[in-house]
Amino acid sequence: MEKINHVIASIKPLDERAMAEARRRQDSLTKPKGSLGQLESLSIQVAGIKRDPRSRIINKVIFTLTGDHGVMQEGVSAYPSEVTPQMVYNFLRGGAGINVLARHVGARVVVADLGVASVLVRHPALKDKKVAMGTKNMAKGPAMSQEEAMRSIEAGIELVEEELANGIDLLGTGDMGIGNTTSSSAITAAFTGADVATVTGRGTGLNDEGWERKVNVIKKALELNRPDRKDPIDVLSKVGGFEIGGIAGVILAGAKYRIPVVIDGFVSGAAALIATSLSPKVKPYLIASHRSAEPGHQIILVHLGLKPLLDLDLRLGEGTGAALGIFLVEASIRILNEMASFAEAGVSEKI
Amino acid sequence: MEKINHVIASIKPLDERAMAEARRRQDSLTKPKGSLGQLESLSIQVAGIKRDPRSRIINKVIFTLTGDHGVMQEGVSAYPSEVTPQMVYNFLRGGAGINVLARHVGARVVVADLGVASVLVRHPALKDKKVAMGTKNMAKGPAMSQEEAMRSIEAGIELVEEELANGIDLLGTGDMGIGNTTSSSAITAAFTGADVATVTGRGTGLNDEGWERKVNVIKKALELNRPDRKDPIDVLSKVGGFEIGGIAGVILAGAKYRIPVVIDGFVSGAAALIATSLSPKVKPYLIASHRSAEPGHQIILVHLGLKPLLDLDLRLGEGTGAALGIFLVEASIRILNEMASFAEAGVSEKI
Repeated sequence: MEKINHVIASIKPLDERAMAEARRRQDSLTKPKGSLGQLESLSIQVAGIKRDPRSRIINKVIFTLTGDHGVMQEGVSAYPSEVTPQMVYNFLRGGAGINVLARHVGARVVVADLGVASVLVRHPALKDKKVAMGTKNMAKGPAMSQEEAMRSIEAGIELVEEELANGIDLLGTGDMGIGNTTSSSAITAAFTGADVATVTGRGTGLNDEGWERKVNVIKKALELNRPDRKDPIDVLSKVGGFEIGGIAGVILAGAKYRIPVVIDGFVSGAAALIATSLSPKVKPYLIASHRSAEPGHQIILVHLGLKPLLDLDLRLGEGTGAALGIFLVEASIRILNEMASFAEAGVSEKI
Repeated sequence: MEKINHVIASIKPLDERAMAEARRRQDSLTKPKGSLGQLESLSIQVAGIKRDPRSRIINKVIFTLTGDHGVMQEGVSAYPSEVTPQMVYNFLRGGAGINVLARHVGARVVVADLGVASVLVRHPALKDKKVAMGTKNMAKGPAMSQEEAMRSIEAGIELVEEELANGIDLLGTGDMGIGNTTSSSAITAAFTGADVATVTGRGTGLNDEGWERKVNVIKKALELNRPDRKDPIDVLSKVGGFEIGGIAGVILAGAKYRIPVVIDGFVSGAAALIATSLSPKVKPYLIASHRSAEPGHQIILVHLGLKPLLDLDLRLGEGTGAALGIFLVEASIRILNEMASFAEAGVSEKI
């Protein structure tokens, strides 16, 4: 916990001066004040995060963290667990959705094994941060130990720190792990107090019967483990996942190093609940890329007070929504940096 | 009207076979079916438009059409009319919002004078399609003659046809014209029957008094001119604008040449009302990029049955929302073309 506490202690508020300067510049550009809506507020948030009203976005990195879930024994997903390692290889070959969208926005993808339940073939582009061979079945006991929970968060912090040397001006989060919407629903219910049925969706495509089973499994896991919402390590260890803890670590490290954190959908949202519960100072560093089709995600967004940039009925994960969000953040910064002011362009101001 | 009728007669329905083929491919890709939501449906729509389930998007073009409005005499805008030509020069120098966002998405911008109320300095990148030196004051009579209305639509068609030689795989619409939200509100009220106050916003930033004046001017223009909603040329001539007619022409030409048409916000929406009223066959070629902060735009979107891709409180026009929409359409096509299938990637399918 020492490393985690150290990171938390180093998170500072956004820089008000840089934000005021960015606001002034936005208001001087050749457009009616406020007419670029959320693009303007995004650019001001980024100025505050980076302590720089004219920052440049060059290196964009999406961290796609993977892990398996013991709760799969309960039949909570439409796909088998073997899909998790198969998708890791798909990421490494560049054939998955996140690869395509990362290429489209010019972002690097860092793929990491936080706890896939099989031995993965070594690959230069695969970061080995395996905490264990998948979580245990949360319907029968805690998903992991408290030590493993802390280790998964630390692993996420390490991923960001190891990548800093290659440059990170903007980061996105992503996940892959068959069964991880079950864990995310449990985390969401634990932190927000929302009813399990309202925060549980169909994941990769459950039918009605499968959905009811999933709801009952989550209820059982919560009743059995009684996670303490005041203690995020307790919640993570009892009903979480290794990739979810890892994403929480990525988020904490983003805030520490003053990098805007573009969070993906439901699973990244569950990780954001853990990160912000560890330290509310993380919140101003977060940018919600989209509203997922998973119903629990909206409850997370409201709980965190985040307004998503996109609402395209996405529910793939991997960081695909974050990639699209990264494009919009970069657009906002280019507006701030590249548009001419009224004075520069010789355009008359408001009457 | 002959040219316009010729274009309308050549608009065909979308290609169902290409759409079915694109749907099959989407369902074979390594993701749960439907998990990329609107990106999937977009790619299928584009396949139908282009008659090609594996089309490529290389040339993206945003048509930014400009014109002035005689109704400015009534004090309906927070900015003076001189801003229209000043912004044209800003476009030509690359300093406006649309230039920045077009660069960000790799699109060309075609700037055209459809009816700016001053003589513009010639520039190789400025298309001269001037119909007249601004419209007349619609609060005192028709904004233009029926001949001018038809000429503005034809000019928009010509702009697309002249650009075809440079390649257009995807087009976006945009506008600039001080006073043109007043015209757009009048057009929206005329076609949809909605109350003037509900379709009238603050444009570039009117205060309460200015907004009330704008509403009254629009009511007066509609009462005086009595545009016939069954006759789009009548509506355009009585309460329209040259750039609005031009955008309607761009839309018609997009449908004729089977190019997906990404429409911008409120003013482009008003032009879409004219184009779809001339021919409902245009509708499947339209992609709504965003929901504008102008209240009348939502009424247009509902009237046309379009679901916007973005909702970022934008109200700048110029094609800025269309540029962002173009990015998403291109993303959808790259997903379709570049993602690996389950078979290619060796990933297990649904249980």
